[in-house]
Amino acid sequence: MNQQGEEFNVQLDGRLLFKHSPAKPFIFVGSGEETIDMYRGNFKIKDYVVERVALRYATVRHEGETCRIAFRHFSHDHELLTMVLKKDGEGLRVSFELVDPLFNRFWVRVAADESEKIYGCGEQLSYFNLRGKNFPLWTSEPGVGRNKSTYTTWQADVKDQAGGDYYNTNYPQPTYVSTNKYFCHVETTAFADFDFQRGDFHELHIWEAPASILFETGESYKSLVEKLTARLGRQPELPDWTFDGIWLGMQGGTEIVQEKIDRALEKGMKIGALWCQDWQGKRETSFGKRLMWNWKWNPEMYPELDQKIKEWKQQGIKFLGYINPYVAVEGHLYKEAYEKGYLATSLDGSDYVVDFGEFDCGVVDFTNEDACEWYQNVIKENMIDFGMDGWMADFGEYLPTDLKLHSGESATMMHNAWPVMWAKVNHDAVKKAGRWGDIVYFMRAGYSGTQGYCPLLWAGDQSVDWSLDDGLASVIPAALSAGMSGNGVHHSDIGGYTSLHGNKRDKELLLRWVDMAAFTPVMRSHEGNRPGDCCQYDHDEETLNHFVKMTNVFTTLKPYLKALTKENAEKGIPMQRPLFMEYENDKKAYDIKYQYMLGSDLVVAPVYEEGKDKWSVYLPEDEWVHFWSGKETNGGTVEVDAPLGETPVFYRKNSSYGELFKEAAKRKW
Amino acid sequence: MNQQGEEFNVQLDGRLLFKHSPAKPFIFVGSGEETIDMYRGNFKIKDYVVERVALRYATVRHEGETCRIAFRHFSHDHELLTMVLKKDGEGLRVSFELVDPLFNRFWVRVAADESEKIYGCGEQLSYFNLRGKNFPLWTSEPGVGRNKSTYTTWQADVKDQAGGDYYNTNYPQPTYVSTNKYFCHVETTAFADFDFQRGDFHELHIWEAPASILFETGESYKSLVEKLTARLGRQPELPDWTFDGIWLGMQGGTEIVQEKIDRALEKGMKIGALWCQDWQGKRETSFGKRLMWNWKWNPEMYPELDQKIKEWKQQGIKFLGYINPYVAVEGHLYKEAYEKGYLATSLDGSDYVVDFGEFDCGVVDFTNEDACEWYQNVIKENMIDFGMDGWMADFGEYLPTDLKLHSGESATMMHNAWPVMWAKVNHDAVKKAGRWGDIVYFMRAGYSGTQGYCPLLWAGDQSVDWSLDDGLASVIPAALSAGMSGNGVHHSDIGGYTSLHGNKRDKELLLRWVDMAAFTPVMRSHEGNRPGDCCQYDHDEETLNHFVKMTNVFTTLKPYLKALTKENAEKGIPMQRPLFMEYENDKKAYDIKYQYMLGSDLVVAPVYEEGKDKWSVYLPEDEWVHFWSGKETNGGTVEVDAPLGETPVFYRKNSSYGELFKEAAKRKW
Repeated sequence: MNQQGEEFNVQLDGRLLFKHSPAKPFIFVGSGEETIDMYRGNFKIKDYVVERVALRYATVRHEGETCRIAFRHFSHDHELLTMVLKKDGEGLRVSFELVDPLFNRFWVRVAADESEKIYGCGEQLSYFNLRGKNFPLWTSEPGVGRNKSTYTTWQADVKDQAGGDYYNTNYPQPTYVSTNKYFCHVETTAFADFDFQRGDFHELHIWEAPASILFETGESYKSLVEKLTARLGRQPELPDWTFDGIWLGMQGGTEIVQEKIDRALEKGMKIGALWCQDWQGKRETSFGKRLMWNWKWNPEMYPELDQKIKEWKQQGIKFLGYINPYVAVEGHLYKEAYEKGYLATSLDGSDYVVDFGEFDCGVVDFTNEDACEWYQNVIKENMIDFGMDGWMADFGEYLPTDLKLHSGESATMMHNAWPVMWAKVNHDAVKKAGRWGDIVYFMRAGYSGTQGYCPLLWAGDQSVDWSLDDGLASVIPAALSAGMSGNGVHHSDIGGYTSLHGNKRDKELLLRWVDMAAFTPVMRSHEGNRPGDCCQYDHDEETLNHFVKMTNVFTTLKPYLKALTKENAEKGIPMQRPLFMEYENDKKAYDIKYQYMLGSDLVVAPVYEEGKDKWSVYLPEDEWVHFWSGKETNGGTVEVDAPLGETPVFYRKNSSYGELFKEAAKRKW
Repeated sequence: MNQQGEEFNVQLDGRLLFKHSPAKPFIFVGSGEETIDMYRGNFKIKDYVVERVALRYATVRHEGETCRIAFRHFSHDHELLTMVLKKDGEGLRVSFELVDPLFNRFWVRVAADESEKIYGCGEQLSYFNLRGKNFPLWTSEPGVGRNKSTYTTWQADVKDQAGGDYYNTNYPQPTYVSTNKYFCHVETTAFADFDFQRGDFHELHIWEAPASILFETGESYKSLVEKLTARLGRQPELPDWTFDGIWLGMQGGTEIVQEKIDRALEKGMKIGALWCQDWQGKRETSFGKRLMWNWKWNPEMYPELDQKIKEWKQQGIKFLGYINPYVAVEGHLYKEAYEKGYLATSLDGSDYVVDFGEFDCGVVDFTNEDACEWYQNVIKENMIDFGMDGWMADFGEYLPTDLKLHSGESATMMHNAWPVMWAKVNHDAVKKAGRWGDIVYFMRAGYSGTQGYCPLLWAGDQSVDWSLDDGLASVIPAALSAGMSGNGVHHSDIGGYTSLHGNKRDKELLLRWVDMAAFTPVMRSHEGNRPGDCCQYDHDEETLNHFVKMTNVFTTLKPYLKALTKENAEKGIPMQRPLFMEYENDKKAYDIKYQYMLGSDLVVAPVYEEGKDKWSVYLPEDEWVHFWSGKETNGGTVEVDAPLGETPVFYRKNSSYGELFKEAAKRKW
């Protein structure tokens, strides 16, 4: 903190954080009146900003280690806000308190420079370096298409208000990492909008004066994510079995599933798990086949599943299910929750159901401890005790804002907290069963704190296409930004999910996606929302054989992947990481969003365009070996052959895993 | 003005205009940083509002008839704005002065009630009652499609940033008429955004504290437009010849034009004028055929045109041309203007040209008196003296904001003024030639003041389709809102203009449009931007005969139309007017935007959907006669036969023009 007359600035370890003068103040308070409309998880958010007042005048008072600053608008009026600066470990905690209850909006400018780059804000699918854009932070459906210039987005907007835009994500987080080597984390669950478009400041807008903002610096990006995850939590190691093969997504009942397993095993596929979403039954809608949303084994559809799960487990194949935080009105769980008062209600106390696309559900109220415990028991009894080793813990983004919650908290303020509360319900159920670090559930929704409560992210519902913003490519910045936000274990639906408005999954897309997935923490396939419109892993002999080979490549990498998941569990260093995390002096590396490093030794550059047989890869200066051909190179931009089955991958020549990588490459043949 | 402690309100003739209390102030000042990007007349406008301060504390001082109010933010700080209330004729003039130079943004709330409806804001094409929406007021291209859910708009956005939205218009105006029977007119040329979405106030946002706001009340809507046009100006009467037939839009050179006239006349078509845009030559672009933009007779394309104009005039057919305020770099006018220093430059003084779609033009600087005079002479010598009786005075909306103007005024502040300055150049040229009220030029761009400088509006470039926001239907609210804004003489391109992204004009659309045009002040056809993709009036015998009949209906209405244009010239009562202007007690009439009255006696309800043979019409309670069949009815919603050639029209049974209407109806047969 340096002060000169009415001006001052705040620094941390040499990084300029705030810069204040009456002519250019850095804090603004105001009031807004929001309108929030939700349609199936897509939110239209408008804010009518009634007032936005620049806090031009500051009075600084030092109290030992603490510095307290009182802000006014003009020099003669009353204090509107106080800010307290205080060391917190190696970081700086900046706390705020609004003095005038008029205000419910807050803007703070963090000092920036033109050349600075910014990463994080949760899982961002369109941009990795966030500079030059603003990012509303509100958990929601990420959108179908996510780019107003595409046909898919336009149709999704016109027909379902569902097209989305570059910033829509299941997992936002008010945290960023700056290339000025600090992280900034805002402690709030309120709607926020981080604006990185300005030249000499970042403007963080929050629908409250946040309890505090935490800054911490680091000497490297690895140390930054280590420090960040020390605060927010870390994922446990993925259990051994997750690297023993693909998690095959399949549906249709015991008989169909058994046939599919038999065929795949016979071909030599490595199967780590079966993943059957429809273990609890299905329904038909115009969107495609949808699940029953009553979380209990459906023995009509899956006869003898209880026995089968045991048999498969003996074969080394785990069984994974599906659950989400809603209960369909037709089911017994809804009835039970309703009777016990575990469902959120309308503001006037009347019943509230959410439309999930031609069927309605109740919202289990996670602000009610008893409701959480009841839902943990549903998970424990119907899923864990039934024999599952994991599940998709879907949704979490849909909390409507016009609900009355048990705790009395506003649903608008709890909306962003909901994914973490949902993660915690799963976490507590698994912990109680003594299975933490063994059972793996995977989530798409997230927020600050997800790190400690969810072992695995998946990238949500991509379109089954080649679009940059919603197709194969988009899951790469998703993994990287999640990693920079402290969430280092990520994967995606092989082949994507959303098949709408004429979009159908073709074989080439499916194969390119499985090629990439073999170099991610987890391989998992998905049939898609309209399985009939999507090419599947068993579409033909060639496809099946392709999956066989890539699962063998993946399982061969097991020792390497195990080391990475351990590193992430211990230090929060993401398994998939940006090139600049390993090569900090390489300036080009900071702009690369469609390549990643898997650990310290592998550069992966997935082919995300159709009809390619060559691919251009950027390699930092080092000694590299092409994974498939063994050819050596020194870095720079290189063009490589990239036929199907050979996603461009290079390993560091001096890697201690060199022999393993050679072995893995051979598995393809 | 009523005051009680720190609260006060301002009324005019019983209408509550402003309501102030410290808890709910009505004026806000602030500062913003705008970004304005123009691409071919389409503007992307963003405003980063740095500050918006509620003026909570007011000190009122009465000085004779004048009331002066000083506003502060909090009670103890300095004065930020003063407001002066003063009678102005029968109106109230409210003037503002910003005390603090920090601020460049202004918001004022005018008291409203839930049931109030609002009309005006210049020429609005998507909404007539403006309640429930906000309307940015900035002259621009109106957009192709103007509705994000249509294919045309989506394609126009993706390919040309040109799709537009509901509020885009060539002619915005910061004036509205309230159903609380007052008008409000803001004296500014700054960017403004009028927000009519709130329950108990309208919020008028302006990028300056406006010089003043004028309010005036009226006992009827006719008296309101009369009072408004007494302030803003009125159109002169259309000359007699405008009702003598259609203005046939044709191009291609003397020979082609002569052939077309001969054929049309032989069939019995009533032709008031020929309108040849390409009198000055043409060029080819990907958009279609475009004009040369060098405003001088092109004798290669139009040999003997000087003689022909005289011949046609003797036949009773006038000749109309085309001009706009830009000069193409290839032409001699550009060279002349450039050498004389009559073109606006870049901010650094270097040359500036505007891209008009594959060709560049200089901007004649109308803040330079000498440049205006020079351009008036171009009009006088090359057009009036050449024998023209009128022209399309196109454009006016494109003034870029990064120009340096001769007067030193900011181009951002002059942008909205430009259409009026362009109108005035035409007006002055015509006046000088002693031809005001005789020569008719028509414009699409406008702003406050256009009323007194332009004899005729046309609705701009509709898409050649049935879309509500950009097709046939849209010109009806356009005419009505322009009328409520003091511009009572309106017409449109018969058949529409814009044929892009697969849109082609079919015969049915063309015929429905000419059916409507026969009941508007002027009939004028347009070939469209891609004549080959558009059905034309001489497409086949049936189409030609249809035009023959409708032009005969139109010319028969001449005495009625002459009375209407006189009424408009004298009192500003629009020729096309909303039903509620004649039937103030009919509540339903206030929500009708796709019907109009032509004068006091005719209700016109154009068929604006494809494939109809019946049409539903709303008639206020009165005695009505169906124009075509002579059948009588008393009002309410009636269904009528509506074959091609019989646009639904009713006349008042007690109209003094009853016999004329019967006569006109016969002309169709």
